[in-house]
Amino acid sequence: MLFRRNLRPYKGQGSSYFRTCVLLTIGPAILAGRAALADPLPSWNEGPAKQAIVEFVQAVTDKSSPKYVRPEQRIATFDNDGTLWAEQPMYFQGFFALDRIKALAPHHPEWKDRQPFKAILENDTKALVASGEKGAVEVVMASHAGMTTQEFERIVKDWLATAKHPRFNRPFTDLVFQPMLELLAYLRKNDFKTYIVSGGGIEFVRTFSEERYGIPPEQVIGSSIVTKFEVSNGRPMLVREPKLDFFDEGPGKPVGIHKFIGRRPIAAFGNSDGDLQMLQWTAAGEGPRFMFIVHHTDAEREWAYDRQSPVGRLDKALDEAQRRGWMVVDMKKDWKRIFPF
Amino acid sequence: MLFRRNLRPYKGQGSSYFRTCVLLTIGPAILAGRAALADPLPSWNEGPAKQAIVEFVQAVTDKSSPKYVRPEQRIATFDNDGTLWAEQPMYFQGFFALDRIKALAPHHPEWKDRQPFKAILENDTKALVASGEKGAVEVVMASHAGMTTQEFERIVKDWLATAKHPRFNRPFTDLVFQPMLELLAYLRKNDFKTYIVSGGGIEFVRTFSEERYGIPPEQVIGSSIVTKFEVSNGRPMLVREPKLDFFDEGPGKPVGIHKFIGRRPIAAFGNSDGDLQMLQWTAAGEGPRFMFIVHHTDAEREWAYDRQSPVGRLDKALDEAQRRGWMVVDMKKDWKRIFPF
Repeated sequence: MLFRRNLRPYKGQGSSYFRTCVLLTIGPAILAGRAALADPLPSWNEGPAKQAIVEFVQAVTDKSSPKYVRPEQRIATFDNDGTLWAEQPMYFQGFFALDRIKALAPHHPEWKDRQPFKAILENDTKALVASGEKGAVEVVMASHAGMTTQEFERIVKDWLATAKHPRFNRPFTDLVFQPMLELLAYLRKNDFKTYIVSGGGIEFVRTFSEERYGIPPEQVIGSSIVTKFEVSNGRPMLVREPKLDFFDEGPGKPVGIHKFIGRRPIAAFGNSDGDLQMLQWTAAGEGPRFMFIVHHTDAEREWAYDRQSPVGRLDKALDEAQRRGWMVVDMKKDWKRIFPF
Repeated sequence: MLFRRNLRPYKGQGSSYFRTCVLLTIGPAILAGRAALADPLPSWNEGPAKQAIVEFVQAVTDKSSPKYVRPEQRIATFDNDGTLWAEQPMYFQGFFALDRIKALAPHHPEWKDRQPFKAILENDTKALVASGEKGAVEVVMASHAGMTTQEFERIVKDWLATAKHPRFNRPFTDLVFQPMLELLAYLRKNDFKTYIVSGGGIEFVRTFSEERYGIPPEQVIGSSIVTKFEVSNGRPMLVREPKLDFFDEGPGKPVGIHKFIGRRPIAAFGNSDGDLQMLQWTAAGEGPRFMFIVHHTDAEREWAYDRQSPVGRLDKALDEAQRRGWMVVDMKKDWKRIFPF
């Protein structure tokens, strides 16, 4: 097939002279063709998940297929926490927030006596959990607002360069899923535009998305706080304010997708109930569709959790996946390798 | 230069046999090279504006230049109303809103006695203007909300296909600026990513941006109202609500750029005070920058207006452009042609 396509422009040129030229010219193309035939998903075990991915990609990229989709419509959206990297024992951005509160504490002597900050400074998990959603919002705002966007980027990058995951004792960005990196690359090679649609902070994820996932900042959608344009001493800046702008989770995900992309994805990848509406929105479009859920089933190599987990709960979306025939990836069975290390 | 680059891989291959092969191979490249040498901006008169554009593009794309910018950083943002298409006697989306109110009036008998609707139905411009900003918001919400995103897209497309501009008696999408279409294409040819950053509605502009400007929906940023995800009879949909989500004008433009793109543009194109902060934000970045204002100076072929105009006022931004040496394009002098027709 590759051969035929490369030869077509030269058809009908009879002389052996031309044929030699053609061979010299298409030599590199043949080598490239061979590379393309190598397994694009080496960290995936052979099985229905891998097969379904490859069949979907082949169908939508084959111009002779009734399922063909033009490149500009090949939008694929990926949740981040639990889909592209791990999310236990809590969302990694949560670790950032707690470390940040501790780093800021010397400037806030009043935190010693005020919840939820007191709980964080005393490592009192019980009191922290007891502070509930209100406490969580206070922690997020105190740790994420009050600086320019450039300062925030620097703070997150510095933290990612030094902080370690408690179980693996490695940088958090090491805990990306190797099979998903291969899937992202495979889709892009087939002219998909890959997007992150994260419940996490858009500016947090953007600090590492290009380097780790090959996804540029303009293809990251996420939750945000309000930023405000100010000119200070003649210098324009964007200042992060302690006020929610957009919550890109659950029903917020299709809203965010529509706002940022303005097209409906043809493939969506998630792992929890927070991704259900993104999957529903994707499924409801016309033409070929691919909906996919990572099921965390491997306590040994990663974690095993679903319906009861406070982090990344997968309950309603698992029922809907089974009812509607969405692909459920069994991490333990389907993934040969979990992490790049 | 083009020749040299194409020949480089073949250097050192001595035989005349090879040289013939090379000629056969690069034939098409030579033709493409010739095309590239043709004037990319034929609707621009020779002058400082055209020269500055070409010099900027050559500098940032020349790897040997100290001003070289990697392709992924070549972000260019364009205002829409008054920069890419005309905006007189009022923003074209305003014509849409008024027509929409008239179309909906039979379902709203109460509008006959209620301002600002009464004024619209009676073509009473004075009373409409008197209803002020509050009236304008009511008109926008009544005409833009209360339907799904898909329905809205259909409504706008139908309107654009039939409505005519009062002065030119042509579809509004005919009133795009030919020199700007050429500029967009020229930048994209040089691996710029071109974005619209409009004070107008994001979903309104997206209905024609790809066809008219070659700008896909995911590269359109604009003002928005809140949309809400709903599932009705098992069918997921996004419903437009009569509530402002984001106002992408003035200080909102750098905020929108940062939110949607997450990178600072290296070139920005506007025409009014509503673009000032976008231009300031662009100018404040490091490395080569290009800031550009369209000055409407041609009452005969288009319109002439600036400091006093209620629509597209150019006052503070004109002062700042003169003070800081931003390029001010004089439509009358610099543009050979205004519209494609």
